[in-house]
Amino acid sequence: MLFRRVLALILLVLSGNLSAQNLPRFALVVHGGAGAMGGVTPAQESRYRAGLEKALEAGYALLKEGGTAIEAVRASIRVLEDDSLFNAGKGAVFSYEGRNELDASIMDGKALRAGAVAGVTRVKNPIEAAYAVMEQSPHVMLCGRGADEFAATHGCQMVKPAYFYTTAQRKLLIQARKTLRRQQHQGKSGSAQASKKELKYGTVGAVALDAFGNLAAGTSTGGITAKRWNRIGDSPIIGAGTYASNAGCAVSCTGQGEFFIRLGVAKSLSDQLEIGHKPLQEAAADLIFEKLAAMGGAGGLIAIDRKGNIAMPFNTRGMFRGYVREDGSICTEVFNQ
Amino acid sequence: MLFRRVLALILLVLSGNLSAQNLPRFALVVHGGAGAMGGVTPAQESRYRAGLEKALEAGYALLKEGGTAIEAVRASIRVLEDDSLFNAGKGAVFSYEGRNELDASIMDGKALRAGAVAGVTRVKNPIEAAYAVMEQSPHVMLCGRGADEFAATHGCQMVKPAYFYTTAQRKLLIQARKTLRRQQHQGKSGSAQASKKELKYGTVGAVALDAFGNLAAGTSTGGITAKRWNRIGDSPIIGAGTYASNAGCAVSCTGQGEFFIRLGVAKSLSDQLEIGHKPLQEAAADLIFEKLAAMGGAGGLIAIDRKGNIAMPFNTRGMFRGYVREDGSICTEVFNQ
Repeated sequence: MLFRRVLALILLVLSGNLSAQNLPRFALVVHGGAGAMGGVTPAQESRYRAGLEKALEAGYALLKEGGTAIEAVRASIRVLEDDSLFNAGKGAVFSYEGRNELDASIMDGKALRAGAVAGVTRVKNPIEAAYAVMEQSPHVMLCGRGADEFAATHGCQMVKPAYFYTTAQRKLLIQARKTLRRQQHQGKSGSAQASKKELKYGTVGAVALDAFGNLAAGTSTGGITAKRWNRIGDSPIIGAGTYASNAGCAVSCTGQGEFFIRLGVAKSLSDQLEIGHKPLQEAAADLIFEKLAAMGGAGGLIAIDRKGNIAMPFNTRGMFRGYVREDGSICTEVFNQ
Repeated sequence: MLFRRVLALILLVLSGNLSAQNLPRFALVVHGGAGAMGGVTPAQESRYRAGLEKALEAGYALLKEGGTAIEAVRASIRVLEDDSLFNAGKGAVFSYEGRNELDASIMDGKALRAGAVAGVTRVKNPIEAAYAVMEQSPHVMLCGRGADEFAATHGCQMVKPAYFYTTAQRKLLIQARKTLRRQQHQGKSGSAQASKKELKYGTVGAVALDAFGNLAAGTSTGGITAKRWNRIGDSPIIGAGTYASNAGCAVSCTGQGEFFIRLGVAKSLSDQLEIGHKPLQEAAADLIFEKLAAMGGAGGLIAIDRKGNIAMPFNTRGMFRGYVREDGSICTEVFNQ
């Protein structure tokens, strides 16, 4: 008993030390995609940053009131999905056939519960469809028509496919189709895969730590412009684009999805903390700057662990990203590491 | 330089020790699903084991001639897909709507390349569609109609959906629909999820080590009887049902797919070797008997590492499984650990 009391005392002193280092009780990180940032003017940069801030404020308001990490992740992602600047929800890219096929996933780090949808076409906020799969079905992942049908009958707000039409994305599709046709004439694969130089941005994601010490992560995207054959990227794949475990960390990825699937980036980062006992920032940097780069892949991620440490590495020119800490101070960045 | 030569010498001696322990240059492991094995008579057990043996022989013939691990995995899985006893290819289960929607994935541990299809309805051998995605597209995962269309235009043998009709599976669907209707009347979720007691078997998979020291893994399934809403299980998800990395191991899973996705079982096992430096059998047992069991999940996996160590743990009553070593000796099992 004496031993236990001494141990408890040591833990108390240690936790005092932690708060002395200003580690937060709760925190929230969001991203709006990584990419070459070719056409981003200073005026546009301001609009993107304003979008990130609005998302952070929505999540922070919940966390401050004792909301859960899952609730904060949903709230932040809904804001980004409703903002036509980002390639998720309202601003989603067009597929080769001219449709908007949306993917999203969400995970609760406490009980390792998860939900995901791929290729939905009528759900206003795909992150809510992913959440409905997690909460109201025995499944983790639904796709296509079945996922739309599930969302429609389980409380999600539905829209007509035309809701997702934006002139900006339609123009990108017309350009992409021309490029693909030229490539096909040259005998190359007739499917869209952005090179690192061309990589567009706009997938959105959020990771959070709440005051109960629980982690959550979510990701939402329209995929890549002119995608074909019902391609599924990393965003709706638990372990690739999204993962959360209280024993490791919460992660949301963005970039060339195929590389993130092959490396299992989100799960691998959590494993590096849980199994390898590496610090979050070191493990995240290793994945993005070593492993992803060695394969020729481009992108980035956001992550948070239970101590409130955050990491936001990317190997592209920029990544829309931001975070808010317990005191409400918001920071957003586009370029610079 | 001297240090390097001494190191090389040590490595040589160590590798001598390895071969002295009769670890194989190549080996192949297959499974035909884990489950309660409720209705398996001794006569049926013989037929299942004969199916596994045929699959092992097909892969072994290639490995013996210097074929790659990927070729052996494809060959073994094709045999099991063509055998109506197993819930993959020809013998796939029916969805709630009465369709056969097939999933498969494959991964090459050398270059971490991967391919997967979900919900195809017209590809005779879904593992070949997964392989075509890996070899002939910039993508990792395609689903639904798009995946069928890709397979049809990239060399896969196509069949009419009626090819997958089997009386045995049709009977299981009729039973399952009755159970679901009863559950819906009781206000429970109207989707199929087999309890541990009811869990059927039949997902197939293979993992191989070839004479070049490369690993590969593949999995193929019809999913769960009466699945709805285009549910995607773990089999076509890289990192969940299938993973292969020369730095870790090759893994194929079977069981209640949702649990395998949430734990990221295949990637996690490989990480436990790569990051945690755990022995294969210890890491595999930890995942199935501790982590999966703690969540209330049921199933099993097969795995092989670069030294030719194999693991085949399961926490169900049985798992159809077998392996063949370099000398051609085949072993198949259904019950017993």
